[in-house]
Amino acid sequence: MKGAPTPAPPRYPGLYAHGLFFALLGKIDPGLAAAVHAAPRKPFTLAALEPSPPSGRGEVVLRITVLEDGLFAPLLGVLLREGLDGLALGDDLHRLARVVATPQGSPLAGRHTWEELAAAPPTRGLRLRFCTPTVFATSKPGRRARHTPLPDPFLIAKSLLSSWQHHSPLRFPEVEAAALQSVFELDLELTRFANLRFERAQAAKGFFPGFTGAVEVHCHSDSLEVQRALGVLQAYAFYAGVGAKTAYGLGLTTPY
Amino acid sequence: MKGAPTPAPPRYPGLYAHGLFFALLGKIDPGLAAAVHAAPRKPFTLAALEPSPPSGRGEVVLRITVLEDGLFAPLLGVLLREGLDGLALGDDLHRLARVVATPQGSPLAGRHTWEELAAAPPTRGLRLRFCTPTVFATSKPGRRARHTPLPDPFLIAKSLLSSWQHHSPLRFPEVEAAALQSVFELDLELTRFANLRFERAQAAKGFFPGFTGAVEVHCHSDSLEVQRALGVLQAYAFYAGVGAKTAYGLGLTTPY
Repeated sequence: MKGAPTPAPPRYPGLYAHGLFFALLGKIDPGLAAAVHAAPRKPFTLAALEPSPPSGRGEVVLRITVLEDGLFAPLLGVLLREGLDGLALGDDLHRLARVVATPQGSPLAGRHTWEELAAAPPTRGLRLRFCTPTVFATSKPGRRARHTPLPDPFLIAKSLLSSWQHHSPLRFPEVEAAALQSVFELDLELTRFANLRFERAQAAKGFFPGFTGAVEVHCHSDSLEVQRALGVLQAYAFYAGVGAKTAYGLGLTTPY
Repeated sequence: MKGAPTPAPPRYPGLYAHGLFFALLGKIDPGLAAAVHAAPRKPFTLAALEPSPPSGRGEVVLRITVLEDGLFAPLLGVLLREGLDGLALGDDLHRLARVVATPQGSPLAGRHTWEELAAAPPTRGLRLRFCTPTVFATSKPGRRARHTPLPDPFLIAKSLLSSWQHHSPLRFPEVEAAALQSVFELDLELTRFANLRFERAQAAKGFFPGFTGAVEVHCHSDSLEVQRALGVLQAYAFYAGVGAKTAYGLGLTTPY
């Protein structure tokens, strides 16, 4: 996207992008926008990124993933239609410069069916790069809001599993999902990390502590079922992200 | 310490220093050496460090802390006596160049009585720098050996508390210690980290994943008792270190 009138990067990119997304949804179908807004788990992720390398011309890269099959085509349609006049990020109108939907166009773009994700090769571990600040909501009893800005292997796997269970039509049977979560708690171990940085991030109405960086997790379980599930979740991470506030730009994750 | 014959740094500094320490203890009192060796929690910490800046002349800095009052004087005596001829780190003899025991001589040296540590100022959080690779032994049921190479606030505080309870004559009453541990689990939150690096470290017979870096933890509890305990544990961290294998060079920690 190109920001025509002003070269300043948007002040609250995650919040603005979130607002733009719902404005677009509303133009497709106000009922749909209201339903998605009310959903406790959003069927999309969203991040407003600096172009790389930075253009210095107010360009913004909006990275959107949809986790619900019916959303993609109408969203693309309204983006193309409205993008000519300009898309509002906060008070600034940004003209749509191009839409990239394939890995050839950007390493952050792609498309997989649920069946393709479910057939991902088994793996003994996870190799994930957290590209935007990532944090886990780890609230404690007594209404204690707590956050964990660390790549805890169990929290990573639990986040992916619960998202998969919520969004995928090919979710694991409940008993199997519970068994997977137990194995993740016992048998995952962080074996390496690199470029781990602390980054405080603005998302929705608050600021959150978060981390970015690359992380390798090993699974000690010999179960092929577990290794299959890990393979699925690693592939799914590209679309679902990890942790809290993925609809506000946090937790953008790529497998490597 | 100066390594006279060879300028190469010792190959397994933690292991060699550990061996040297017990050789010295044995010269004080073979019975004492055997008793300390058999103790599940060692009343000392030990790290073999590169001089800073590196001398390029095979010099090694041995940083030793003792957590038992009776050990300091005899250990210093035998160090000074044996150091003239040379102290063995692995196969190499190192001549003792100097002993530094005060913060004026080195930021890693100091001396506090248990009473002074217990009177440390209360704090709402911890600010700790992990100077050598630090790791937590987080074994799981079914004899699963697991390690956590991340600055988890609860694991940090639990490690310090259990060491204090074991070594300090001023330990908290058991009920209070249990209450403190519950508060640590509920109310500690990592608020910042910097220079967090993954470092695989050799200690004793194995290699361990570990981290170094600076970490800030906030405690949400308003209890003055909790804040007093945190102050004590933060001051104690300088002597006790944090996590596993502190007698082999891991977990050297300084408050800041």
